Amino acid sequence: MPTVTFLPSYRKITVDAGSTVLDAIQRAQIQMNVVCGGQGKCGKCVVFIKNGSVEFDREKFGRFFTAEELAQGACLACEAVIGDDLHVLIPESSLIQQQKILMESLGIETVFSPSVWKYYVELSPPTLEDPSPDLTRLVWGIQKQGGPLAEKMYAPLDVLRWMPRVLRDSGWRVTATLALVPGGFRIIDLEKGDTRSEIYGVAIDLGTTTVVAYIRSLADGRIVGIASNYNRQISCGEDILSRVNYARKNGLPKLQALAAESINLAITTAANGAGIDREDIYEVVVAGNTIMTHILLGIDPAYMIEEPYVPVVRRYLTTAAPRLGIEVAQDASVFIFPAVSDFIGGDIIADVLASGMGEKDEISLLVDIGTNFEVVLGNREWMFSCAGAAGPALEGGEVLFGMRANPGAIERISIDPITLEPEFQTINSVKPVGICGSGLIDLLADLLRACVVDRTGRINTGIIHPRVRQGDHFPEYVIAWKTETGNNKDIVITENDIKNLIMSKASILAACITLMKQAGITRNELSAIYFSGAFGNYINKENAIMIGLIPEVAIDHIRNIGNGAVEGANMALINRKKRKTLDEIAKNIAYIELNAEPSFMDEYTGSSFLPHTDLALFPRVEKMLDECRLKKIPVGVP
Amino acid sequence: MPTVTFLPSYRKITVDAGSTVLDAIQRAQIQMNVVCGGQGKCGKCVVFIKNGSVEFDREKFGRFFTAEELAQGACLACEAVIGDDLHVLIPESSLIQQQKILMESLGIETVFSPSVWKYYVELSPPTLEDPSPDLTRLVWGIQKQGGPLAEKMYAPLDVLRWMPRVLRDSGWRVTATLALVPGGFRIIDLEKGDTRSEIYGVAIDLGTTTVVAYIRSLADGRIVGIASNYNRQISCGEDILSRVNYARKNGLPKLQALAAESINLAITTAANGAGIDREDIYEVVVAGNTIMTHILLGIDPAYMIEEPYVPVVRRYLTTAAPRLGIEVAQDASVFIFPAVSDFIGGDIIADVLASGMGEKDEISLLVDIGTNFEVVLGNREWMFSCAGAAGPALEGGEVLFGMRANPGAIERISIDPITLEPEFQTINSVKPVGICGSGLIDLLADLLRACVVDRTGRINTGIIHPRVRQGDHFPEYVIAWKTETGNNKDIVITENDIKNLIMSKASILAACITLMKQAGITRNELSAIYFSGAFGNYINKENAIMIGLIPEVAIDHIRNIGNGAVEGANMALINRKKRKTLDEIAKNIAYIELNAEPSFMDEYTGSSFLPHTDLALFPRVEKMLDECRLKKIPVGVP
Repeated sequence: MPTVTFLPSYRKITVDAGSTVLDAIQRAQIQMNVVCGGQGKCGKCVVFIKNGSVEFDREKFGRFFTAEELAQGACLACEAVIGDDLHVLIPESSLIQQQKILMESLGIETVFSPSVWKYYVELSPPTLEDPSPDLTRLVWGIQKQGGPLAEKMYAPLDVLRWMPRVLRDSGWRVTATLALVPGGFRIIDLEKGDTRSEIYGVAIDLGTTTVVAYIRSLADGRIVGIASNYNRQISCGEDILSRVNYARKNGLPKLQALAAESINLAITTAANGAGIDREDIYEVVVAGNTIMTHILLGIDPAYMIEEPYVPVVRRYLTTAAPRLGIEVAQDASVFIFPAVSDFIGGDIIADVLASGMGEKDEISLLVDIGTNFEVVLGNREWMFSCAGAAGPALEGGEVLFGMRANPGAIERISIDPITLEPEFQTINSVKPVGICGSGLIDLLADLLRACVVDRTGRINTGIIHPRVRQGDHFPEYVIAWKTETGNNKDIVITENDIKNLIMSKASILAACITLMKQAGITRNELSAIYFSGAFGNYINKENAIMIGLIPEVAIDHIRNIGNGAVEGANMALINRKKRKTLDEIAKNIAYIELNAEPSFMDEYTGSSFLPHTDLALFPRVEKMLDECRLKKIPVGVP
Repeated sequence: MPTVTFLPSYRKITVDAGSTVLDAIQRAQIQMNVVCGGQGKCGKCVVFIKNGSVEFDREKFGRFFTAEELAQGACLACEAVIGDDLHVLIPESSLIQQQKILMESLGIETVFSPSVWKYYVELSPPTLEDPSPDLTRLVWGIQKQGGPLAEKMYAPLDVLRWMPRVLRDSGWRVTATLALVPGGFRIIDLEKGDTRSEIYGVAIDLGTTTVVAYIRSLADGRIVGIASNYNRQISCGEDILSRVNYARKNGLPKLQALAAESINLAITTAANGAGIDREDIYEVVVAGNTIMTHILLGIDPAYMIEEPYVPVVRRYLTTAAPRLGIEVAQDASVFIFPAVSDFIGGDIIADVLASGMGEKDEISLLVDIGTNFEVVLGNREWMFSCAGAAGPALEGGEVLFGMRANPGAIERISIDPITLEPEFQTINSVKPVGICGSGLIDLLADLLRACVVDRTGRINTGIIHPRVRQGDHFPEYVIAWKTETGNNKDIVITENDIKNLIMSKASILAACITLMKQAGITRNELSAIYFSGAFGNYINKENAIMIGLIPEVAIDHIRNIGNGAVEGANMALINRKKRKTLDEIAKNIAYIELNAEPSFMDEYTGSSFLPHTDLALFPRVEKMLDECRLKKIPVGVP
């Protein structure tokens, strides 16, 4: 009976002459793609005959192959009939091995395809008859365990240095960690015994304010630990500009070290929580804005804050963890997300990756709101992006009782359109002390619905109601009386606060409209609007449209992707194929400099209304406003 | 008129419609392979149409291409007719660029194809309209200068760190050094201004006793400096075994550091002599025996000196120079020759490379003689190798007046067969104090010719001549009377000396014959015998055959390749394609353990005669001995 040896695993099986190669593969329990069930129709069960020959009709099935493939012995396993002993190479692409992982926060699945793996091997010790070198013995052992081809594996110097001791001390039973690198596989660790379950990776969101770390098992993809902490660079300046200036005066190395320290702290917290050893973390994936990643890499960011705003590098980079001071496995590498420009960094590319918009035919809009905002519009073929300063109003700055989303902040509020009485909830359900971004959007939308505020943002002082009054400087609406509050003050929103809020939202809406006009896209062509960032998680979508923060689309077209930066980093961590996507996304995204765009100021002016001067852009809001007006007659709406 | 843009250089040219792509290429002064002169016959002028289309008969010329190539737009430049604007990619393989370098010591040419290059570029500074990142600007600039595709180039962290300063301080005129690495090109240096001429590489022979360094310009291949010095590890033991034992007791790092120091010393001497800066040395190629290269790499050699004699690694390795303490350009890499086994190291692979025997169809034999000897037999398809201890006799040890090739050593000698009077020359032409290896071979051959010594090595004490006498312990022949010598002693060779010499030469000859028998090769099938090592340079080839040091072949089949280790290293330095050959050589060479070979002892016994028991193996010698006997009748020959 002929013996079939499968490569690269060197698994052997004997079969009856006359069997097909597919029969042999199935008997050897190798999981192969056979879409058509072995009828020679789908062309998926491609194998290469490396030694020996098979009966195979090259004329009939030639269409599935290139000339080069045929020259290399390609045939369909289901149609190749075995006569004699064979060596059959099964390419990875013919195997079923796509395990999928649910990305919890996004509610989508991604293929589990990490870029590091562990192989446990039991090797026979060298003898006079087989005095192969240690490395040869190891790589052949790994290949026989189903690993990559022996000649594709190589070991860096430090692994070679400890290899002879580890092999002999373990009785030739070791676990090797392999990482995919250009041109092959690098053996980045060698440990005694079977440590296959101890293989982890970290996804990092390196934010200007906060660093978030997710540790995942790279054996099965599951999350084992999450931690976040402040970026320790805050001691060198709260915003990114002051950090760059700090670096100019005090040198970059300190800031670089603080970035690494912040990451180490988050990793340590997450690792300790999960009870895992940092030495078992073999890959780190970092998404951050362009200046933050330059600083982490120790590359001078100074040229990004002055004209013509030039980064040193925007491609993705892979570097050794110790080079950056990141304390994980000695030979772990750090993958840094690519950027588009100094304003559209790896964090935004991560947003786009997490949203999936860069892989769809339909057109989507992505909005990431913080102190600055970034907007991306497009699909798998093209993307436009822009960025700008949103101003602090939406984060509670420049608003009298504005605050961050801390305990006592009003996070949800609604106003009865008849009685003008508010109903609200605070974070931690304590007495209110202020109002945060999501509350402000609700408030502004309901003040508009109740006709307390008109479309220009003015408070209708003609209304006779205790909550609508002239304040010290501006007209104001009283949200909570001091008897109800936690700070013994009437919590109000003033006309000036509203003006500031409108300026913030107008920048964002104008940016969205500018990109859409550039691309010749109308709101009806948007299949989705993605909100990224903590902000998006909390706001009421209908109210965001009501005030004209974003273009009007159907509510169910608006999706929150949460912390897109860390979600994108997670995706790239567990599915290495997404890294190519990243590079394509980065290349596809054109950056539009809003300040150089003459139409932007016009759009900004139009957007400085609630929701916009042109209500034709907001038909649902227009209808709603009409209904409100009918209920409320007569209050002075412009 | 259509515009043709050539990739990867982005050179543009306008031509008349109806011209061929080859016309356009020639007008653009691109040097292309056109073997048949543009008749569509040779299939060498392959180009790929990347944008636009040409008239080209795919049916007729399809045979030159694979399906995949055709799908990628392949056509023959000479047959492709231009109608409209085109982008034409010219693959490297279609260009004439094979400059050849004469390897002086070997008298052969090799292609000049280094693995590092410098590109000088003048970049336009960034503007608001073109705010491309520094790296992007640089790699596009290099591509436009005829360098690799921009996307194939990447920069390591340290180059990225100094990139923005160098670009701006130089007014955007910089020289980048590129190194070929798996998957692309690494930018290993970036300097201000035009430094294209300052690019060097070093070839190193890392011997147990001596380190030799050749510095070559990698701009044009010429040798700019040579230096050699003792291996500073000699302070830790003279032979390789004592070094390994030293490492066991005192740790490997000191020996590793001494290896690096020895190399640094040789490089510094050669660089200073040539007036070049070590920072301009971008590549180091090292050939050495397996234990020496393990030590240089800091990898424990201990398992190579005990059964079953296992190296840690035998493949070639590339590592960063600073990792080994070799002081050249910061991002230079060190290429370490592969080995076959612990006994057949990179020095022998270098011999094989330098000899060219691994690339020929004809069968050759290579003999490298030192304290140990190595023999390799074979051709491009197969090779056998073995190694053994030659004993010190051929280097002058275990011979009463034997000495190394120092001043006063008799290096050439001949004996008048009738008068038995010698004629000799000494190193530096001073009074003789002893005799070195090449002299000993001459002496033994002529004593045999003069029938003073018989084929068993015994001195014919029946001869009545003042120079043939009974010494203190053994019969002896007086080479020089004490009145003529530099040490006031009669310089003699004793029968015991001759026994030791025969033991040495017998090991080597037996090794050659064992390999030849294994391969089923007779001496008539040998196209060449290569001598490597200093030894080979000085010995008289006819005399080497006379005594049976090597199998008998025609004299003009015997070639000296000099220091094969450093010659091979030089070849791999200036012609990167030889590195693939190296790997194939290393894989092709089977190692025969002589001690495990039962026939070896028989061959050794047969070889312990002058030249061998079986004179049928040495027909020329047999004839010569017959002639000598006729002249000398009667002296007692066995």
